Amino acid sequence: MHYPTPISRLIDGFMKLPGIGPKTASRLAFHVLDMNEEDVLSFAKSLADAKRELTYCSHCHYITDTDPCRICNDTTRDAAVVCIVQESKDVMAMEKMQEYSGLYHVLHGAISPMDGIGPEDVKIPELLKRLQNDEIQEVIIATNPTIEGEATAMYISRMVKPTGIKVTRIAHGLPVGGDLEYADEVTLSKAIEGRREL
Amino acid sequence: MHYPTPISRLIDGFMKLPGIGPKTASRLAFHVLDMNEEDVLSFAKSLADAKRELTYCSHCHYITDTDPCRICNDTTRDAAVVCIVQESKDVMAMEKMQEYSGLYHVLHGAISPMDGIGPEDVKIPELLKRLQNDEIQEVIIATNPTIEGEATAMYISRMVKPTGIKVTRIAHGLPVGGDLEYADEVTLSKAIEGRREL
Repeated sequence: MHYPTPISRLIDGFMKLPGIGPKTASRLAFHVLDMNEEDVLSFAKSLADAKRELTYCSHCHYITDTDPCRICNDTTRDAAVVCIVQESKDVMAMEKMQEYSGLYHVLHGAISPMDGIGPEDVKIPELLKRLQNDEIQEVIIATNPTIEGEATAMYISRMVKPTGIKVTRIAHGLPVGGDLEYADEVTLSKAIEGRREL
Repeated sequence: MHYPTPISRLIDGFMKLPGIGPKTASRLAFHVLDMNEEDVLSFAKSLADAKRELTYCSHCHYITDTDPCRICNDTTRDAAVVCIVQESKDVMAMEKMQEYSGLYHVLHGAISPMDGIGPEDVKIPELLKRLQNDEIQEVIIATNPTIEGEATAMYISRMVKPTGIKVTRIAHGLPVGGDLEYADEVTLSKAIEGRREL
């Protein structure tokens, strides 16, 4: 079947996005043809702009269009607490909660010896340097509860503890609204392990 | 929560597409940031190009980047048969089948008195003019089996029959691989109505 070239190029473009197969891509492409020109052009521009204008904060490595980023620049935030996350998306999840007022440090990955990713391949050296220079009192490790995330947490905790800075790990357990019956064993064991007195 | 402006603009762009909500939009936007720059720019360009370069064939109203479109221009096709469809997408579905070698006429909609869409709002006048000028022997009506599609089919058939041109309607019945048990009554009644001798 031959689509006119501009359509097939557009479909190919959509197919490069995650979770979008040929059918969805062609549905989206046809929708684009029905959209008004201004919207399409501004969408095209925002794609190119996002790639061009965004950079990583030289301080916390969060994705940003200003350097240092707005979070690092915000003097109302508590600069004595640093939350360590794997990805920029995790910062956004934390910010959505609107309860954390400290700073962040984005690792851009996790230690994974199986994939040949060591501490130097994520932003751990940058973290250690930051801990030396800045006046930080607590490091909250919020890497994912996966093997890689746990290994990274363990490694960071071992590197930071000797400096006397408090190191904490976010709690793992049953999600709120979750059902004990359907929880996996590991989560359940973490929930028991992390139990607190009422 | 504040995303950096270029990201929120990009997320807004994705959210204008059908079936993409805030969560998927932000997932796609973050994926774009991880893509290599060349891919992103070519995708952005293909969006703008698709909108700019594509037009409708002045003969059959199919979406195209050349006028007349490649199908109308193809001298190996049977110009005596015209298949009437509602949308350009339907032409592609037909072409995928690789069995139909006639031409098309895209209506860009269907008659729907409830929505105030009359015969003049879809490409029916253009069809009638085309039937007068071109040497057409058969008109296959392939509008959708919906109330609007059927009404459009009925209207076209009534307009075309007096000219002596053969008017046919594609068959409705059980889809291949379908299960009689799960077929709705209307489809089943169409299947019985359209039964053929073996």
